[in-house]
Amino acid sequence: MIGKLNHVAIAVPNVAAAAAVYRGALGATVSEATPQPDHGVTTVFVELPNTKIELLEPLGDNSPIAKFLEKNPSGGMHHVCYEVEDIYAARDRLKAEGARVLGDGEPKIGAHGKPVLFLHPKDFCGTLVEIEQV
Amino acid sequence: MIGKLNHVAIAVPNVAAAAAVYRGALGATVSEATPQPDHGVTTVFVELPNTKIELLEPLGDNSPIAKFLEKNPSGGMHHVCYEVEDIYAARDRLKAEGARVLGDGEPKIGAHGKPVLFLHPKDFCGTLVEIEQV
Repeated sequence: MIGKLNHVAIAVPNVAAAAAVYRGALGATVSEATPQPDHGVTTVFVELPNTKIELLEPLGDNSPIAKFLEKNPSGGMHHVCYEVEDIYAARDRLKAEGARVLGDGEPKIGAHGKPVLFLHPKDFCGTLVEIEQV
Repeated sequence: MIGKLNHVAIAVPNVAAAAAVYRGALGATVSEATPQPDHGVTTVFVELPNTKIELLEPLGDNSPIAKFLEKNPSGGMHHVCYEVEDIYAARDRLKAEGARVLGDGEPKIGAHGKPVLFLHPKDFCGTLVEIEQV
């Protein structure tokens, strides 16, 4: 069912500093920082030949990554995102297999403008999983 | 400098159970479990179209992921691995940029039979980074 790894998201306290590390020490191609107020994050994309890394800094008062950064003040890997062809079919399969879908179970429009769902980390080896219909 | 994302490693308490989740709920192509006594882990590879996920279970008394699993008993994302063309050139660039290379700074042969180095998480936004010469 799952297709490509769309991205690995890394939460960071300061996206400009993180971008400088990826651009400098790691010599990667890094986008400009983009505030995404609807999603409570500022994003920087690290473009790799086969996938991307998303660096996320909290934005605003209700950022979905604020609690994670309280626990991990230096930052850390926050979630992985797998592509699916049909998000409703994926959701129904996951639920039938006993996996918990977060929120009300209805896909939301994610930071890339496409429908996404998040899955409970406890059902996926301690890893927060996002699925995105592409 | 860095090329493809070679893999995301997820440490798990039970690699057979983790493989069943990836094969079942997520419908992915999953390898057999392979004990790697030289590296202190049993590995399962989840083959995605553009990269892979490595599920790692501790093996033996001195597993390099034992401490991580003590802190994260349900498992969690352990490291990301980026490909480089020349591991010595990569190491020298990283050190010149102030990043800390773990261990004695000499590349070791990793679980794929290729030279690898690990970089200090504190220098990479709280994320343990492996670089692998491919």
